[in-house]
Amino acid sequence: MTNDDPHLKEVATASELLFQGNFLTARRDTVRLPDGHSATREYVIHPGAVVVVPLLDDGRVVLERQFRYPVERVMVEFPAGKLDAGEDPLICGQRELLEETGYRAREWAHAGAMHLAVAYSTEIIHVYFARGLTAGERQLDHGEFLDVFAAPVDQLLGWCRDGTVTDAKSLTCMLWLTQYLSGAWPLDWMTPHQANPAG
Amino acid sequence: MTNDDPHLKEVATASELLFQGNFLTARRDTVRLPDGHSATREYVIHPGAVVVVPLLDDGRVVLERQFRYPVERVMVEFPAGKLDAGEDPLICGQRELLEETGYRAREWAHAGAMHLAVAYSTEIIHVYFARGLTAGERQLDHGEFLDVFAAPVDQLLGWCRDGTVTDAKSLTCMLWLTQYLSGAWPLDWMTPHQANPAG
Repeated sequence: MTNDDPHLKEVATASELLFQGNFLTARRDTVRLPDGHSATREYVIHPGAVVVVPLLDDGRVVLERQFRYPVERVMVEFPAGKLDAGEDPLICGQRELLEETGYRAREWAHAGAMHLAVAYSTEIIHVYFARGLTAGERQLDHGEFLDVFAAPVDQLLGWCRDGTVTDAKSLTCMLWLTQYLSGAWPLDWMTPHQANPAG
Repeated sequence: MTNDDPHLKEVATASELLFQGNFLTARRDTVRLPDGHSATREYVIHPGAVVVVPLLDDGRVVLERQFRYPVERVMVEFPAGKLDAGEDPLICGQRELLEETGYRAREWAHAGAMHLAVAYSTEIIHVYFARGLTAGERQLDHGEFLDVFAAPVDQLLGWCRDGTVTDAKSLTCMLWLTQYLSGAWPLDWMTPHQANPAG
């Protein structure tokens, strides 16, 4: 499959800042459609993020419970966070896992990436697995409140099925986790040193 | 698990319209954090959506290729669309499948729901499966350009693994599809008439 189909592609002809908030930035672009007509596209600019699937030695995974204001509920999620400017995704994953859960991991594996909301956001989330975990003190950001807990994969799968887990990035991680555990999608594990010799 | 943890919950104390675009609407709310401090939350208001996993009798699934401007690429996705005001999700799924692909389905099953971008959007996507498909003429909206095609599930899974498919809602659907096909998550199939006697 090619990614450059003229019969599908939209080309920008103008771009304006829609608003710049404390957290959200949005733009409105004018585009030329494949048939030559014009349309506008409004979307959120996002720096990208990382989500981590932390595997404990006993077979459980590390999860978080966090109140998510836009959906007005406590969500069960894998640890995740936004990339700092210029930050390597693996470094971000290590930082977020440590800050939010207190865990450090001996080995890491890059599984893939997802685009979260393709209709209105630039956000890409890089998916990492972590194993060889050791617990420590977490370092939550000011104003960040979340619970950390561990659950067996089978129980987590049940929560995905029964609607306890509805977070799309975490459900997507469960596709990778189930395929990894079945042996269908092996991962290429590495130590942080191998991954970032300069780090 | 309870969904009303005082040590996690944020309570709105003020709300303002951040902007109202042609497509996006965003608000900025002031909230009281669990520790009594204040913070702001900026988020997109979304009407909700439906995604459909259409199963052909030969074992393939129906997919779309669509240019997604915010991520600047042609994405492989399951058919999906936004809820009209007050629209039943099943009716929306039937409408979007017909409009975008031309297919009608004899049987439908509700699989679950996902919250797409919990940090900055209210969007919930309802997941439906459809089978007993018959092809017809599609009825694309003005300015909508997309290709419809079918692929075997194994090939689609390969695309999820190798990064050809990166759309989070479609990857989440693949969790349900793999669990359904393995027999682990059976679905409760119904005809549209059973589901909507008045429809």
